[in-house]
This record gives sequence, C-alpha cells and structure tokens, in this order.
Amino acid sequence: MSAAGGSPRRDAPLGVFDSGLGGLTVVRALRAALPDEDIVYLGDTARVPYGTKGAGTVTRYALGCAGHLVSKGVKAIVIACNTVSAVAPERLRVELDLPVLGVIEPGARAAAAATRVFKVGVLATAGTIASGAYTRALAACSTRIEAYGQAAPLFVPLAEEGWTEGEVPTLAARRYLEPLAKAGVDVVILGCTHYPLLFDVIEREAKAMIGPNVTILDSASVVAREVASFLRERDLLRERGAEAERDDVARTGRTHLFVTDVPKTFEETAARFLGEHAGAAEQIDL
Amino acid sequence: MSAAGGSPRRDAPLGVFDSGLGGLTVVRALRAALPDEDIVYLGDTARVPYGTKGAGTVTRYALGCAGHLVSKGVKAIVIACNTVSAVAPERLRVELDLPVLGVIEPGARAAAAATRVFKVGVLATAGTIASGAYTRALAACSTRIEAYGQAAPLFVPLAEEGWTEGEVPTLAARRYLEPLAKAGVDVVILGCTHYPLLFDVIEREAKAMIGPNVTILDSASVVAREVASFLRERDLLRERGAEAERDDVARTGRTHLFVTDVPKTFEETAARFLGEHAGAAEQIDL
Repeated sequence: MSAAGGSPRRDAPLGVFDSGLGGLTVVRALRAALPDEDIVYLGDTARVPYGTKGAGTVTRYALGCAGHLVSKGVKAIVIACNTVSAVAPERLRVELDLPVLGVIEPGARAAAAATRVFKVGVLATAGTIASGAYTRALAACSTRIEAYGQAAPLFVPLAEEGWTEGEVPTLAARRYLEPLAKAGVDVVILGCTHYPLLFDVIEREAKAMIGPNVTILDSASVVAREVASFLRERDLLRERGAEAERDDVARTGRTHLFVTDVPKTFEETAARFLGEHAGAAEQIDL
Repeated sequence: MSAAGGSPRRDAPLGVFDSGLGGLTVVRALRAALPDEDIVYLGDTARVPYGTKGAGTVTRYALGCAGHLVSKGVKAIVIACNTVSAVAPERLRVELDLPVLGVIEPGARAAAAATRVFKVGVLATAGTIASGAYTRALAACSTRIEAYGQAAPLFVPLAEEGWTEGEVPTLAARRYLEPLAKAGVDVVILGCTHYPLLFDVIEREAKAMIGPNVTILDSASVVAREVASFLRERDLLRERGAEAERDDVARTGRTHLFVTDVPKTFEETAARFLGEHAGAAEQIDL
C-alpha cells in the first residue's frame, strides 16, 4: 500500500525517522543490507531526546515526523527511535496507510531465537526501560523468557562525544552489565540507536563478566535484516538499474537527510553515527 | 516595571524558567538566599535540552516560557538556563516589560572579581561553550581576562543519575579539567545548572590538578546573590509577614512548579536538583 492507497512503488524511498541523529546507525545498517534503496531520513533534532517525554507527547511528535516522510512518497517507514517504537507504532499503523516497522520487535525476536537460558538483558535509555516495551515484546515471543532491563544513561553522551574506548566507557559498561551478569542472561540487546558505537567495549566486558558465548544484539543491524526480508517478501525491493549492473557500482541508493534543527556539531556527529560523511541536511519545521 | 506597566509589586512571585529540571538548582539557591519570596518555576521538559538547538529555536522556546511566567504575574524573571542566557536575554528584555536576569553575566562578574591571574575556565554544555557567551561576558568585565571553555557532556547524565562519587565522575572531572589546568586558570565557572551536584568531585580534582587556591564558582549560588541584591536595590523584596515574624518560621515563600511534560522520574530527579521533596508539578502546554 502506498500513501495514496495505490499499488506499492518499488522505486519509492524507504523512510526512516528518529528523535535525533542516533538513528543514522539504522541508516548505516540499512545501506549495508540494502545498498540499492533510496532512503529519506528525518531527525527531529529540535525536540531530541524523546526518551524523557511522556507517551502522548512522543506520539504527537512521531505523527508529525511520519507525516513528513509520507509527503516524500516513501514506500515504508522504519522507526529508528526506541522510544517511539515503544509507545507509538500501532497508532502510526492505524493513521498511515503504509507499512511501519519499529526497532523493538525485531530485536526481541532475534534475542528470543538466540537465548539458550531464556534470560535476556536489555540496555537502553531510562525511558525505554521504564516503558516495559522490550519485556512485553520478549514475552510475546516466548512466555518462558525473563527480561532484565538496565538503563544506561552514560552511553549516549559517550557515543556522541566519541569517547568509546578507555577507562570511563569500560567502567560504565561494567556498571550497567553487572545486574545483567548477576541475573544470568546469555543475550544482551542494545536497545538504543547510540549504543552500536560502544559495541566493542560492551562486548568485551560482557564476555568477561557473563561468559565468552554471550550474544550482543545490535538492534540497528537486526532491524535492517528484518526490513530486507519484509521488502523481499512483499516484492518491494528496489530494482538495481541496468546501468549500475553494467558499471558494477557498490550501491546506487541515495540518502536524503532532513532535520528540524541543525545541531552545532551536525557534520561530526552525523558522520560518527552514519560511519561516513553525511552530506548536507535540509532543515524543516514540523 | 510590572507586566501591566504599573508599579512593581513586592509580593508578586519571582519567575524562574529552564529547559528542564536542572534549573531547580537555581531555585534551591534562591530559596536559601531569599526564603520569603514566592517562586514560580517553569521547566520546559517536553523540549529539553535546549543546548543542542539553534539560537532561533531556543529564542522562540524562551519567549513561550517567559510568556507563561508573565501570565502568572511575576515581578522579575530569572533565566536558569545557560543556553537561553547565552542567546536570548536581550530579546526577552525587549519583548517583556519586566526585569530579566540571566545566569551568565553574574557568573562572569564573580569570576572576574575572583581571578588573580586573569585566566578563567568555564565548564558547560557543548552548546554553551560553542556560543562563546562566557568569553564575551568575561571580556566585558575585563579585557585582560582570557577565557578557556571546556564542554563536559558526561556531567549531565552523571548528575541526573545521581552518580556523583567514585571513579567515573572523578575520571570525567579530570578529563574536563585537564585543559583548564594546562592553561593555568585559577577560577572555574560551573556554567550548567546540573553541575552543582558534582561540586564536591570537581572541587577536589581541581584542587589537586590546579592548586589549593582554585575557586570553583557555582553559577546557581552566584545568580541567587545577584537576584537578592537586585531586588533589594529596587525595593522589590517581599515583606516578611507579621505572622511569620511572630512564629519565627524559617521561610514563608512557596514554590509553584510548572512543566510542559511530566518526566517518568520527575519526583526523584526534581528532589535531587531542589535538595528537598518537590511536591506536585502542574503540566501545561506551550
């Protein structure tokens, strides 16, 4: 279904939105999994973060973001924001005549498939943990699974500052992993778009504290795989152009960035999350 | 001047606003300095933080907050937010027919009075440092003063989490103080409402790294002293009621809290910044 209610357009872009720039880790994973797709990204940088805000406010903001993506003719919407994925996906599915994919359910499904002891840890913002969304999503996968949530507020500024190695990220990771290790989990979901930047230190400390077979699930990569399956099943994958085939270029998809405010360190922060130079962003008012 | 353009009303409340709950450290300092004043506080918790947003957006938000305080009949407005104090006080003074006091100029004046070597360090959010507001305010006090700004992004989540002792706040303080120690400053301004909660660790590390005579200026206390002088000079201090005098109560002033969104951990966070139980907050829509 397209926004206009007609047949789906394979060549239409994928829409992705987040409260800020952290969702660019999802764009990075999508570009790796689906190099030929065009992506329209909206970061609501004027109102970031959503994690501390109430469900009504977050839902209102999410409807505004999704509306902008619909106006750009997207074929599906990926909610890169854990907070929005926790409170608003059903409302967005009802209001929009479009497929809407959040980050929480794919992460929960991957965790349920990976755990051998039926104990799963979740590291996320205080807001996401308090929402209980991962606990519900894991319970929907298997009633045997026990979920252990741990807020990790320091990880966001550490990721934004690029302070991803050394004693402070290590001590922070140990503090946040300690209750999960005590609980005996064997899978840890990184339930915030910022945390993939700290993947190495979290994985190293988790292996030391929990055991070498612990699985760390980066929800950006998980959701990208799920979006790829979703598009394939519904025959919505963008066709690779004959020209690209002939020239054997690595990818043909383009990314268009929209923000609601241009943060002072936009280029640096965006490049950190995207893993490459981000190009210019267009500022819009929601 | 009152909002209605009439004569000032001593018994009218003081208005204080901030992007979130951090400004309650300013309320705490005001209550200590001016125990008989009524205070109306507005925390724009639906749009916190302002520090990452552009000057135009921040000014628009600040006008909305100040307008709400004016509607409550305040006699003066204290901008507890460093970001707003950096970009919007002149605009607020022009738009409102009321005295408007920010946090940056009082902090800069106190630093200029305290420094012996004419080198002043400023710890603040990335946004406040990038604005150059402290550098300009210090230059306005004395052209001899050199200002050294250092963004300290980890201090906000550490304060909010109550993680104010131990290795991580110590290492973070060392990292952020190191360039200031190298520059040879003898005064450090804490230019963010959250930082007073980390006063002890910052002071201890600063004494070790800079020297025992370093002065740490907590801008909340500095602005409270300046507000007290301002009200006294203009004969705007609230009269202590005869009943309170007779009963010898410690203070008669009340605090009324407004927020634009009720954060999930409102009570705990508010109490941390206010230094006592905060009572209920009224939610408004701006």
